[in-house]
Amino acid sequence: METTKFAIPEIIFGRGSIKYAGQCALRNGAKKVFLVSDSGIEKAGWVQRLMDVLETAGINWIYYPSVTANPRDFEVEQGAEFYLKNGCDVIMAIGGGSSMDTAKGIAIIASNGGKIRDYEGANRIQRPLPPMVFITTTAGSGSDISQFCIITDVKRAVKMSIISRTLVPNISIVDPLILSTKTETLIIQSAIDALAHAIEAYLSRIASPFTEPQSLKAIDLIMRNLQHAVETRSLDSLEKLSIASIAASMAFSNAGLGAEHALAHSLGGHFDMSHGVVHPILLTEVMRFNLESCPAKMADIGRVVLNKRLGSDEETAMEGIEKLDEFFASFDVSLKLHEVVKKNDKKHLEPICKMAVNDACNLTNPRPASWQELLKICQKVW
Amino acid sequence: METTKFAIPEIIFGRGSIKYAGQCALRNGAKKVFLVSDSGIEKAGWVQRLMDVLETAGINWIYYPSVTANPRDFEVEQGAEFYLKNGCDVIMAIGGGSSMDTAKGIAIIASNGGKIRDYEGANRIQRPLPPMVFITTTAGSGSDISQFCIITDVKRAVKMSIISRTLVPNISIVDPLILSTKTETLIIQSAIDALAHAIEAYLSRIASPFTEPQSLKAIDLIMRNLQHAVETRSLDSLEKLSIASIAASMAFSNAGLGAEHALAHSLGGHFDMSHGVVHPILLTEVMRFNLESCPAKMADIGRVVLNKRLGSDEETAMEGIEKLDEFFASFDVSLKLHEVVKKNDKKHLEPICKMAVNDACNLTNPRPASWQELLKICQKVW
Repeated sequence: METTKFAIPEIIFGRGSIKYAGQCALRNGAKKVFLVSDSGIEKAGWVQRLMDVLETAGINWIYYPSVTANPRDFEVEQGAEFYLKNGCDVIMAIGGGSSMDTAKGIAIIASNGGKIRDYEGANRIQRPLPPMVFITTTAGSGSDISQFCIITDVKRAVKMSIISRTLVPNISIVDPLILSTKTETLIIQSAIDALAHAIEAYLSRIASPFTEPQSLKAIDLIMRNLQHAVETRSLDSLEKLSIASIAASMAFSNAGLGAEHALAHSLGGHFDMSHGVVHPILLTEVMRFNLESCPAKMADIGRVVLNKRLGSDEETAMEGIEKLDEFFASFDVSLKLHEVVKKNDKKHLEPICKMAVNDACNLTNPRPASWQELLKICQKVW
Repeated sequence: METTKFAIPEIIFGRGSIKYAGQCALRNGAKKVFLVSDSGIEKAGWVQRLMDVLETAGINWIYYPSVTANPRDFEVEQGAEFYLKNGCDVIMAIGGGSSMDTAKGIAIIASNGGKIRDYEGANRIQRPLPPMVFITTTAGSGSDISQFCIITDVKRAVKMSIISRTLVPNISIVDPLILSTKTETLIIQSAIDALAHAIEAYLSRIASPFTEPQSLKAIDLIMRNLQHAVETRSLDSLEKLSIASIAASMAFSNAGLGAEHALAHSLGGHFDMSHGVVHPILLTEVMRFNLESCPAKMADIGRVVLNKRLGSDEETAMEGIEKLDEFFASFDVSLKLHEVVKKNDKKHLEPICKMAVNDACNLTNPRPASWQELLKICQKVW
């Protein structure tokens, strides 16, 4: 086997585990925590809860609340100024992918200077970042586990992938109690995001024996628990989605993703859409495109999705993909691009696909995909 | 679920990956590396190879060669003096569990002072350790992944378990090429050590969804590959044992172990024996003792060992244990205590078992075990 790397944060998982946030900050030398979140989490009361935990631990903090969905370049650059001006030493985020990616972007600029676009791509960060302690409020983005940071370049209207081992936070606190305050839509979108991570990571050209079992575990948990979690909101099933998201994140952070995420970044950057919206539209079509390159691995996914073995690899793989289509259709999500993009905007698909081929995620897709092939996929799912 | 923690080092895995040792030391701020190994690894040429790698990276090093099997308290205390006198800043070990545990012991004393016995048990280390980069030369001890350090207390003649998250090294380099220079005995003993880790961690009272899949993966890989690895020495099968050892270590480091390891520490400390010798004698008898407390989980192990499902959990569990007995018998290893302990020494079993009940590993055994029950187990396998 060629050299493979596997890096994840220290994980603290469990109901009520937010209470350990103060100790975690102290263990990383915190005197003044830079706390990143958004108004939704504030309203749900979690920001106040976290502030109370920090105060009990005797830690100063400064709050940076201005996180928007799909964080933009100028926002993290402003945040870094604010971080430095206030002499902070540990960055803590409580929120979904947007809050955590904002925190990562701020950490990069505060310690390495320059503009965030200087770090686009893999391994461009030279100097160490301040310690990061993250508390995820969704079970999907994986930013709390991964070495990825996705920031929108406003001028080019594209989501940049910034990938570096130093973007793995020091500690990730996952408290399933927090999930119980999320909307149905967010639970579905997050779980489908995690499912897309797990599938693309499993098929990645650099998947390894350390990432593959994590992918399959995540697929299994999401297929068996998402419907039930949406219907009942039972803490047990939300907890299982949480575990699935962590497993999927361990996989994609170390194995990379594929063409579907490359497209999702470009489409999402252009039309300001979140991943969770794009995956049910694109994922199975990209799997059909990739099938010829990896029928055995696609069959492994099929076996987990179907929970049974069929005759041939091809048969299992194809039936698995169809089952995924049915699975997506069973939720209240869009299944075609025209449902989420205006008719007039179809003309933008070509430049979007030309952008997507250069996304770092496209490098690990099992079948090389040109922009013309990506465009064909987009047209099929229009 | 109650709060559970999962912490592992950054792992760099692959044939020839020893070449990254210099970069890894530099990333941890190395100016002068304290290099720990033993004469066996030296003779095999790996110490020189590592010194060459460090020199190419422009890093100074000082070599500490005096590692013996089952490292003793006074040795790590001497090592710490040597470390401090030489102004080192990163500890690197290349070797098996003994070299790595020596390095950990030195790291503890060099940064926290006192005597090594002050740190026996769980979470007794207060101050941060120097960065540690480990290169394992066996596929079993797991010290390269785990938060465990086992040092013999010479006066009490017992192996002390020292357990702390800070004992997880910063980086673990696993190069399967190094395994190809090991003896048959060492390959078998190491794999059986990893198998015992995987099984005890799976049954542990604090096993979690993060550790359980790693345990089952390790058991599967060892059952399917050890015989072939011994017969052919093929790099592919040695690599699989390596992956198994990493998976088992991720599991036991975070889930803990059980009564079998508690006994193995006390027996090993008293009679100066390595783990690999004790496991084939004790493991299945401890599993029989534990069976009533965890039939479903014991059946999961049975299904992996047998590679099939039987009627009931109890049937699958029992047949799995018998299959493990057969598996051990198929190698050239001792299966009874009297083969490795002198007849005269039988009288020491009682004090040994009284020591073992207090070993930290006994706390996570699925069925509470008194010293009398441990003694019964030892008598059964005499």
